[in-house]
Amino acid sequence: MAIKKNIAVLASGRGTNFEALARACQHPDFPAELKILVVNVPDAPVLARADNYGITTAVVDHRQFRKRKDFEAEVIRVLEPHGIDLVCLAGFNRILTGCFLERFPMRIMNIHPSLLPAFAGLQGLEVHRAVIEYGVKVTGCTVHFVTGDLDAGPIIVQRAIPVRDEDTPESLAVRVLVEEHQAYPLAVRLFCEDRLILAGRRVLVRAQ
Amino acid sequence: MAIKKNIAVLASGRGTNFEALARACQHPDFPAELKILVVNVPDAPVLARADNYGITTAVVDHRQFRKRKDFEAEVIRVLEPHGIDLVCLAGFNRILTGCFLERFPMRIMNIHPSLLPAFAGLQGLEVHRAVIEYGVKVTGCTVHFVTGDLDAGPIIVQRAIPVRDEDTPESLAVRVLVEEHQAYPLAVRLFCEDRLILAGRRVLVRAQ
Repeated sequence: MAIKKNIAVLASGRGTNFEALARACQHPDFPAELKILVVNVPDAPVLARADNYGITTAVVDHRQFRKRKDFEAEVIRVLEPHGIDLVCLAGFNRILTGCFLERFPMRIMNIHPSLLPAFAGLQGLEVHRAVIEYGVKVTGCTVHFVTGDLDAGPIIVQRAIPVRDEDTPESLAVRVLVEEHQAYPLAVRLFCEDRLILAGRRVLVRAQ
Repeated sequence: MAIKKNIAVLASGRGTNFEALARACQHPDFPAELKILVVNVPDAPVLARADNYGITTAVVDHRQFRKRKDFEAEVIRVLEPHGIDLVCLAGFNRILTGCFLERFPMRIMNIHPSLLPAFAGLQGLEVHRAVIEYGVKVTGCTVHFVTGDLDAGPIIVQRAIPVRDEDTPESLAVRVLVEEHQAYPLAVRLFCEDRLILAGRRVLVRAQ
């Protein structure tokens, strides 16, 4: 098979999507190697998961930087030695801007726990709470490229599930997370196999 | 079984959703009787479909009325003798307002060819064109109650389908329509079985 691509994960919290990617990367035929996990929260639980998988970690505490661009420059500096082809955000609670986006154009992915463009701009359980309060019958998750527009970059993979009458934000989060853990590795695989084609703001998938 | 509810359909065009409802109402165990089709376009093709099913039709040409409320009052007058419990919009190209909504509170349904709240405010092929241009991977249809807020009333039924790379607005319309023809009769059935419960802006379904 082709040479593997190098990926980095940026996270801030539990890191279940990090683990889904780490597990996918353990398969010999998965086209990516997870080189490094960078967290901006020094005690993020995701760090322990990385240790379990023997994956290099780095902490870049955003509170140590007065300016966002200095924080981002430090993350870039930490990533630099690893030859990163793709940056995957997994519950990363910082918004990325100018210099970072320019360093990795259409090479940063994020996962959002709704069917974008619906319920953009919210995070975590807030998304599921809004979904339930609005009363939609179908929700899901979206893997998309990160651009300067929050939750509005080109969409790579979406998966849908039904919302049930008895759902709470917590129960919905659990079922959407199951889909996230499938969608994110799929999106990374397609990227690393060079199969994603950008057409306008659509992401088309080349046949293998 | 319980006494059937009386429904009316308001349409302006082809009327494939009208036909889906007319066909459903032919089943002896379907809890609704389709009493009348009202169109606002004198030569709407849907009129011929109604004739095929032996359903009463009426034309209320909105161009004959200077004020929207006079048009709506005339539609109400036409419906009155039929003891209508539920009004179903099926490709009806007029926005309903004040007096009509007050006459049938939470008794008017519409179907929209997207997963609302995404791609609200558009009509027909425009919806599918926007879906494709935005690049979502999942779309569908929504049956909702009609309120004063365009395409934003409480959602009764949604069904999702994948968007394919090769889709055109036309091909997507065809596949979404298949879902519409299942979703609309289902929503009408649930309403007519008195199984819909409004909770905030959620529509819950009582078990049978």
